[in-house]
Amino acid sequence: MSEVEERITRIKQHKGVKGLLIVGDDGNIIRNTLGSGSDKESKSYAHHVSEIAKKAKSVIRDINPLDDLTFFRIKAKRQEILVAPDKSYFLIVIQNIDEDNDAINRS
Amino acid sequence: MSEVEERITRIKQHKGVKGLLIVGDDGNIIRNTLGSGSDKESKSYAHHVSEIAKKAKSVIRDINPLDDLTFFRIKAKRQEILVAPDKSYFLIVIQNIDEDNDAINRS
Repeated sequence: MSEVEERITRIKQHKGVKGLLIVGDDGNIIRNTLGSGSDKESKSYAHHVSEIAKKAKSVIRDINPLDDLTFFRIKAKRQEILVAPDKSYFLIVIQNIDEDNDAINRS
Repeated sequence: MSEVEERITRIKQHKGVKGLLIVGDDGNIIRNTLGSGSDKESKSYAHHVSEIAKKAKSVIRDINPLDDLTFFRIKAKRQEILVAPDKSYFLIVIQNIDEDNDAINRS
């Protein structure tokens, strides 16, 4: 199994992970583990998140041209989107937030 | 001292915090502790980050209309931007990343 496949398998096994997407700079989906019934959702994640990633890269570079985006995280009440940019693609991990788990973290 | 002032003072005292901004939905700066010499930088943070926050809100709502953005974090090699959205404004905290500290975290 290739290193990328191993990494994908490991991420998918994390508790709460709903799935992951590998998206090119252009927003095209290269890899998708969210399952066939979630095409609309996957496209929405891919489009919006790659747009946000480009904006995040530019605010970082605007402030310091020598700096570089390494990671970003969007947290909501019921889900979390974790994004690791690479040279020409983004790894996007979608994680469900377990209500009681989140309550424990915040207590 | 009002509760908001106390909270701002506490945040400012965190190790590595460069400053914070309170920005309205429209991107206007309501409060800025980054210091007078950083007008251009503050405006860039305010503009870009409120744009990103709106996009992050819409991707969350796109996927699940009942869900809501609670927090997001943009991490770069030398700085980190932490954003807590509220009803009509965003609290933006800018944190410098201490090279060796980050290396310790990642070892």
